[in-house]
Amino acid sequence: MKKLLYGADYNPDQWLDHPEILAKDIEYMKKARINCVTINIFGWSTLEPAEGQYHLDWLKDAVDRLYEAGISTIMATPSGAIPNWLSAKYPEVLQVRENGVRNLPGGRHNFCYTSPVMREKVKQHDHLLGKTFARHPGLIMWHISNEMGGNGYDASCHCDACQKAFRLWLEERYGSLEQLNHAWWTNFWSHTYTDWEQISSPQLNGELQLHGLNLDWKRFVTHQMIDFYQMEYDTVKAVNQEIPVTTNFMEYFKPLDYFKFKDRLDIVSWDSYPNWHGIAGDEDEVSVAVSTAVNHNIMRSIKKQPFLLMESTPSLVNWKPYNRAKKPGMNMLASMQAIAHGSDSVLYFQWRMGRGAYEKHHGAVIDHYGETDTRVFAEVEQLGRRIATISPAVSGTVNHPKVAVIFDWENWWALDDAAGPSRNMNYTKVIESHYRPFWEMGIDVDVIDMEQSLDGYQLIIAPMSYMIKAVFAERIKAFVQNGGSFVTTYWSGIVDETDLCYLGGVPGKIREMLGIRAEELDTLPQNERVGFDFRGNTYYSQRLIASIKVETAEVLGTYSQDVYQGKAAVTKKACGNGNAYYLSGEHEVAFLKEFYRNLAQDNGISSGIKTELPYGVTVTMRTCENYELLFVQNFNDKPVRIELDRSYELVDTGDYVEGEVVMKPYECMLIKK
Amino acid sequence: MKKLLYGADYNPDQWLDHPEILAKDIEYMKKARINCVTINIFGWSTLEPAEGQYHLDWLKDAVDRLYEAGISTIMATPSGAIPNWLSAKYPEVLQVRENGVRNLPGGRHNFCYTSPVMREKVKQHDHLLGKTFARHPGLIMWHISNEMGGNGYDASCHCDACQKAFRLWLEERYGSLEQLNHAWWTNFWSHTYTDWEQISSPQLNGELQLHGLNLDWKRFVTHQMIDFYQMEYDTVKAVNQEIPVTTNFMEYFKPLDYFKFKDRLDIVSWDSYPNWHGIAGDEDEVSVAVSTAVNHNIMRSIKKQPFLLMESTPSLVNWKPYNRAKKPGMNMLASMQAIAHGSDSVLYFQWRMGRGAYEKHHGAVIDHYGETDTRVFAEVEQLGRRIATISPAVSGTVNHPKVAVIFDWENWWALDDAAGPSRNMNYTKVIESHYRPFWEMGIDVDVIDMEQSLDGYQLIIAPMSYMIKAVFAERIKAFVQNGGSFVTTYWSGIVDETDLCYLGGVPGKIREMLGIRAEELDTLPQNERVGFDFRGNTYYSQRLIASIKVETAEVLGTYSQDVYQGKAAVTKKACGNGNAYYLSGEHEVAFLKEFYRNLAQDNGISSGIKTELPYGVTVTMRTCENYELLFVQNFNDKPVRIELDRSYELVDTGDYVEGEVVMKPYECMLIKK
Amino acid sequence: MKKLLYGADYNPDQWLDHPEILAKDIEYMKKARINCVTINIFGWSTLEPAEGQYHLDWLKDAVDRLYEAGISTIMATPSGAIPNWLSAKYPEVLQVRENGVRNLPGGRHNFCYTSPVMREKVKQHDHLLGKTFARHPGLIMWHISNEMGGNGYDASCHCDACQKAFRLWLEERYGSLEQLNHAWWTNFWSHTYTDWEQISSPQLNGELQLHGLNLDWKRFVTHQMIDFYQMEYDTVKAVNQEIPVTTNFMEYFKPLDYFKFKDRLDIVSWDSYPNWHGIAGDEDEVSVAVSTAVNHNIMRSIKKQPFLLMESTPSLVNWKPYNRAKKPGMNMLASMQAIAHGSDSVLYFQWRMGRGAYEKHHGAVIDHYGETDTRVFAEVEQLGRRIATISPAVSGTVNHPKVAVIFDWENWWALDDAAGPSRNMNYTKVIESHYRPFWEMGIDVDVIDMEQSLDGYQLIIAPMSYMIKAVFAERIKAFVQNGGSFVTTYWSGIVDETDLCYLGGVPGKIREMLGIRAEELDTLPQNERVGFDFRGNTYYSQRLIASIKVETAEVLGTYSQDVYQGKAAVTKKACGNGNAYYLSGEHEVAFLKEFYRNLAQDNGISSGIKTELPYGVTVTMRTCENYELLFVQNFNDKPVRIELDRSYELVDTGDYVEGEVVMKPYECMLIKK
Repeated sequence: MKKLLYGADYNPDQWLDHPEILAKDIEYMKKARINCVTINIFGWSTLEPAEGQYHLDWLKDAVDRLYEAGISTIMATPSGAIPNWLSAKYPEVLQVRENGVRNLPGGRHNFCYTSPVMREKVKQHDHLLGKTFARHPGLIMWHISNEMGGNGYDASCHCDACQKAFRLWLEERYGSLEQLNHAWWTNFWSHTYTDWEQISSPQLNGELQLHGLNLDWKRFVTHQMIDFYQMEYDTVKAVNQEIPVTTNFMEYFKPLDYFKFKDRLDIVSWDSYPNWHGIAGDEDEVSVAVSTAVNHNIMRSIKKQPFLLMESTPSLVNWKPYNRAKKPGMNMLASMQAIAHGSDSVLYFQWRMGRGAYEKHHGAVIDHYGETDTRVFAEVEQLGRRIATISPAVSGTVNHPKVAVIFDWENWWALDDAAGPSRNMNYTKVIESHYRPFWEMGIDVDVIDMEQSLDGYQLIIAPMSYMIKAVFAERIKAFVQNGGSFVTTYWSGIVDETDLCYLGGVPGKIREMLGIRAEELDTLPQNERVGFDFRGNTYYSQRLIASIKVETAEVLGTYSQDVYQGKAAVTKKACGNGNAYYLSGEHEVAFLKEFYRNLAQDNGISSGIKTELPYGVTVTMRTCENYELLFVQNFNDKPVRIELDRSYELVDTGDYVEGEVVMKPYECMLIKK
Repeated sequence: MKKLLYGADYNPDQWLDHPEILAKDIEYMKKARINCVTINIFGWSTLEPAEGQYHLDWLKDAVDRLYEAGISTIMATPSGAIPNWLSAKYPEVLQVRENGVRNLPGGRHNFCYTSPVMREKVKQHDHLLGKTFARHPGLIMWHISNEMGGNGYDASCHCDACQKAFRLWLEERYGSLEQLNHAWWTNFWSHTYTDWEQISSPQLNGELQLHGLNLDWKRFVTHQMIDFYQMEYDTVKAVNQEIPVTTNFMEYFKPLDYFKFKDRLDIVSWDSYPNWHGIAGDEDEVSVAVSTAVNHNIMRSIKKQPFLLMESTPSLVNWKPYNRAKKPGMNMLASMQAIAHGSDSVLYFQWRMGRGAYEKHHGAVIDHYGETDTRVFAEVEQLGRRIATISPAVSGTVNHPKVAVIFDWENWWALDDAAGPSRNMNYTKVIESHYRPFWEMGIDVDVIDMEQSLDGYQLIIAPMSYMIKAVFAERIKAFVQNGGSFVTTYWSGIVDETDLCYLGGVPGKIREMLGIRAEELDTLPQNERVGFDFRGNTYYSQRLIASIKVETAEVLGTYSQDVYQGKAAVTKKACGNGNAYYLSGEHEVAFLKEFYRNLAQDNGISSGIKTELPYGVTVTMRTCENYELLFVQNFNDKPVRIELDRSYELVDTGDYVEGEVVMKPYECMLIKK
Repeated sequence: MKKLLYGADYNPDQWLDHPEILAKDIEYMKKARINCVTINIFGWSTLEPAEGQYHLDWLKDAVDRLYEAGISTIMATPSGAIPNWLSAKYPEVLQVRENGVRNLPGGRHNFCYTSPVMREKVKQHDHLLGKTFARHPGLIMWHISNEMGGNGYDASCHCDACQKAFRLWLEERYGSLEQLNHAWWTNFWSHTYTDWEQISSPQLNGELQLHGLNLDWKRFVTHQMIDFYQMEYDTVKAVNQEIPVTTNFMEYFKPLDYFKFKDRLDIVSWDSYPNWHGIAGDEDEVSVAVSTAVNHNIMRSIKKQPFLLMESTPSLVNWKPYNRAKKPGMNMLASMQAIAHGSDSVLYFQWRMGRGAYEKHHGAVIDHYGETDTRVFAEVEQLGRRIATISPAVSGTVNHPKVAVIFDWENWWALDDAAGPSRNMNYTKVIESHYRPFWEMGIDVDVIDMEQSLDGYQLIIAPMSYMIKAVFAERIKAFVQNGGSFVTTYWSGIVDETDLCYLGGVPGKIREMLGIRAEELDTLPQNERVGFDFRGNTYYSQRLIASIKVETAEVLGTYSQDVYQGKAAVTKKACGNGNAYYLSGEHEVAFLKEFYRNLAQDNGISSGIKTELPYGVTVTMRTCENYELLFVQNFNDKPVRIELDRSYELVDTGDYVEGEVVMKPYECMLIKK
């Protein structure tokens, strides 16, 4: 982006009978320094109230008036939810659920992504939107649909059309039933397929225990979703290739492998709703910050480019079991965190609260009260001023981490679908535990999948990589040979891409590089932990422990308790110019901090500020050719002191700071060198 | 009632092949001083074993023999459950559930309330019952069906006939789709209806997120149930207008708005099954007593008349997760509590335990043993003697509270259906927390809905009144103007009757009267609480706290902690001759006691006995023109001392008491002045 | 068995394209001293890949090669799971679930046991298997299907064919609807049946509250399963009557009454997967050992003969929420425990891990690594050597307990189905609590149902025998008359075989013998317990307490607290030459130990070794005409000292031991006298 975007989801269609409110909207947006809005999300029934009858005047009017006020438009295609007339006339557009029953109208993303009628209808209005707005000077971006697949249960349809499409996709993938039967190991329980027609999607009253089928179905769902998305992309983009296209993603949205959208998007965007202040009072603010940072980094890593924060709430949401208001200052900090991690925008859902239905209590810039003398508006306005101030310095900068953590959707699916070893594999929490030491050190980290390039990194961490894909095994070996450091853990290298177990010893294709064989994996009771020695200290491992045989590796840590006594807890093997490390259990965060601190030092990886960061404070760096920007973020609700290593320019004021600085609660200091 | 009724549900139809047991029944009823029974509940298959073949002899015989023994009959219509031949021949009488699937035969209240066949069949036997018994000297009351809607899941049917009836009801309510679309705010997620046929009831695989639809469906369910009930009422009443009609209600039965039955019943009755002694050991006996008292008061407040306790258990029930026996004395105390709160009866479910099926282990006066030398029978007999003794003094007396708490079904529905702010709104528990201080002070309280008259009250309390209905807003303003005191809380005045949020500031139509604006509502983690100062003490608020802006109100209490520091916790505003109070958080009971003690004093509201009541003891008053009766109830399982303020007559003995009295565990002392 | 069997489930059909693996299998089996395998489980799709096309070569080849290597074959019939071509062509073979919906293909035991097509197809391949293998010298046993009914939800099918068969079964059982209506007490809630066609199985959207229907449905399911099983039995046995037939049972498998298979099996076998080391860390190893022992004893008691351990895991399983590896030594101990309790075999599931699908992570002798230099293989090999060593001494010996605990499936069904008194009746845990004192004393105990012979026992214990069958009542009275001791408890003697409550006082038909009347049953809150005095000590009762009236019994223990004060906690009545005891509450294990210790002494019942056993150690005895074998099992993970009462021969070495012996952690010492 040429400047930082600041905006909100805007639904004038809910207030067309209140022109005075529409007028106030513009006035108050300007007051808040908003420079763009997302419009037309869920606008279908207003846009096309009856089949083929299009009403675009309200939308054109809105875009015009916004433009006149200096506010740009991100135009959504309204396929996120379908109008009642459509499902009444073409019931086949409605989704069939896992239980084999077709949905009634209702909700959102309640349609079949395969249905030709659905696709045709969407294409028609997307074409019309393209024709009408593609060259409007206010238009800066297309926004395809909204939170694709986000219907609250799963992202898939099990109708006959989808079953047929799935079988064709499988035929293309496997070529023959023989290949498929082998890949899915179907003669277990006598489930060998002898006709393509015998194959169905995993349904609640059908086949659920063929992991290969389950995995391929999930792949197909992502494939089909992208196919639908691409149809919309092509349609809106047809008139003017200059307008970039996005679609907004969600946090850890398991049904869709977002990395597969990589080449289909011009820019990634997502909707971030962290549980600030702990919804159950049991979460440290830091762990929320870490989890949010991981998600920002996933979004940034998809295209390895800046992304957009497409939705966030100015204060609270309404759809969690318990919904906390953001405390004063947290909206500023959370927004700055997004920018620090690579966002070129802060947008809110929503500009103005609707009066009825499911999201009427979702936070908004303007609530039902309707005026601006509120705490929330004041904080929104304050951030608007700051974004305007820092935009020239920030736009054009990017993040360039030397460390990457592997987070792979297909691995996640396979890991959780497997029967055993434990009901709760906690993949995302494990990922976060390996990321946290870097957050605490102020070192940025990409979060990539196994199919992405490893170029430019010095350290790759692949926690619990149950599925090791062939391409990744090859690349990681080359990476280590060329001097990189690689870390992996227990329960890695178990299966290949089709979810078949590797023969010949765990961790499969990377076993030789690691110089060990993981013989058994044990699940510990929740109240047990096992101690091990590492560099003179005792640390603990819990939940999952692999019992390994060391073959050619060097042992860095050794268990000292229980049946594990004397077994290796941490190993290292030099390969070419690099090193491969194996952590044999779910080691505590205290160990990971010590371990990664050493690894960072060994690899010359350090934070942008050379100082010891207080607890709860991190630093994230964006750079351009000419300077480095450091976002120093204090997630404590109290002041902290930080000792700067040199003099920096404060981007907000142009002043300079050095020496000891006292940061306010929830402050984000933006400094430049 | 001219005398207190004492009786039980009686099912001679289960024992027709055991005349010796039927004979014993009458003998033992007389021994227990039972003066009435409810008969014919679930009698359909005996009454009409095949279509159109009516067998009334057993029923006539039972009513005759009871009458000869001095026992009156409350005659039920047997529509609570349907015979198998009916559903076999007319499958359309069976309910269709929320998942769109029609039930198989089984259970009770498993029929469509709309079905013309069902209505016709019920009408036929009701007509026959009317013709046969309406002038029988033993008949004292009609009892329509049984626990209407009580099928264990919800009270509704989703069949096509019900869908049609629902659409017609909506057309009548809204006049046009335009009105309906606005009221339900349907263009959220593009759900605008363009044809009445597009509307369906909320179903599990359909539309569940339009709060207006959900709310109207619940209203329709109550409407349709009453329509069915009215058909039965008219039928049985046709022959003899003198016989009063009731139907029995249940505790906090959410699917039906019982207040809407107000003008359709000659007398309210209900079935009370409190968790005495705590099923999980985690409930104080007082909180059970308070919860039970609230329910009695709801029943009394529906018609603002005495009601009937239609069912209670002599000892235990069988349908709770854990079923405790009543301890010695508790049956007496619980029964007297019902009378104290306005019941003119104590009836048991059931007279005699059946040998098989779902309720075979439900408590009864006569168990499978079959004789009367049991603890339970002894306690039943003891109560029978007491009721006979006190009946002349009690019958004709009524309760006349000066305080009312608002408990509104439509508010309850809307509150719990809303997405946000918290999964657990705990409406009934909140209601009880506001009632408890009065229970502890011995002050009686009506529990009314928002549509009832406010005449005669001095203090109205409306906790968590999320939906403020227009009629209530008008009346409460007049009430305060005329000198009443009004208390409301956080999360009140959010939506109107159609569940649309009020614009212009919370709490909507009563905001000016309160002189505040509730700007935000926060949900606290479970382990957090926030202190506030009130009259020199610190109290705590938890779970839900509104952040308010004081406009014209006086601040009585102020938060001293966290982000709430300095914000108002309690406000007061004088309006005309009265005062309006706002409590901005879920304040602890200790505060509510202090607060309401002051308010009661300010309004000159006091208990019937001017004395400090020990913990666990309450006083409830019934009066007539000539005297006041005080029910002093000790819910402790140990003796307590109570200091009387004057001399009273003991109704049971005619003796007089004064000064310090020692009450036995679970004793209810009935005194007169 | 003439020798102890040592083997595993073997699936060569999964590796037919890997002849080198098949060759290794034989080599490694020999190394592990395996002497038999179970083969062809789930082999249908390989055996008959298309309708009527049978491929038996692979199976013949496997049996031949095994035989040549000295390894016998247990041949399974492959009806545990059906091939896709079968359900595609004959959809009626698929099960209809409780919700009335027919399954899609998938899982195992997903077929209708009534379907004529299914039966015909199974008969065809069973016939072929019989013809091909019945006289093969390698064949030692037929193994019908696999874990019958084990589909993960319940064992029943609700299709029309099953409904019809159920109605015919009911007609045969009851003769008339009048009888059935009485037995099921159907006029409760007006559910009287007037046509057999009105009866359906209990379904989720239908009749679930007629306990008699529920109970008879469960009986029918067992009946129908046995009918199917018998068809397979007859088919495979036709060619050679000498080959014994078994089917493998599961732990506490509630849907099937295994005792009803008694006369249909030549030998009982079962699959044991205890939670060694506690999956949640909250279970003592002893309670796991006790629970496992109870299950072994059930299996032994079905035919009162030695049984087979058909499946066990060499280390871990994959289908529990958390899956622990067996610690070193536990596989030896658990296997020896099985043999001690009457098993003539130790077989593993599975020989070799499959590469894909649901059980790919289930423990196996050979894992995906594929070689034998693993901890697991070493332990398997060690046990193989030991089994070969002890086989001559053990084979031919049997267990002969003098004590029996009643565990009756129909009682279990009725107990748990009843509404009231408590959601959790914990029947199996209660059974285990009465067994545990004997385990700790080293006294063996049969676990029989109410229909089995009581001959040969001196002490019969019937905990929580809610349903007392007429035949049992008669036999137990004779048993006590003839000098036996009988113990029963609260909530016994409530209903008869049709689940109708006994009239005339609890515990029904055995009330006079016990000399008490149980008047009420109370459910205590979870944190409450009530003390009682017994032989000078205070013990506690909890959860469920019956309030009893002592009529002719002697009181041995008396409550000292709460409303139970003065009531009897333990009674005894002499009848003829024996005694009948009643325990009125769920008394703690400490009491049961004291109580049964005395009862054992009184009856002259003692352990095989006269010594005080340390905690966690038990002794189990198998005998033959010439000697007694004592299995001394240490379930502690630390060494214990045990004082022998005389000199014994160590079976493993032929050496003699006497005096104090130190047993290693998890050691099982096998001694002979």
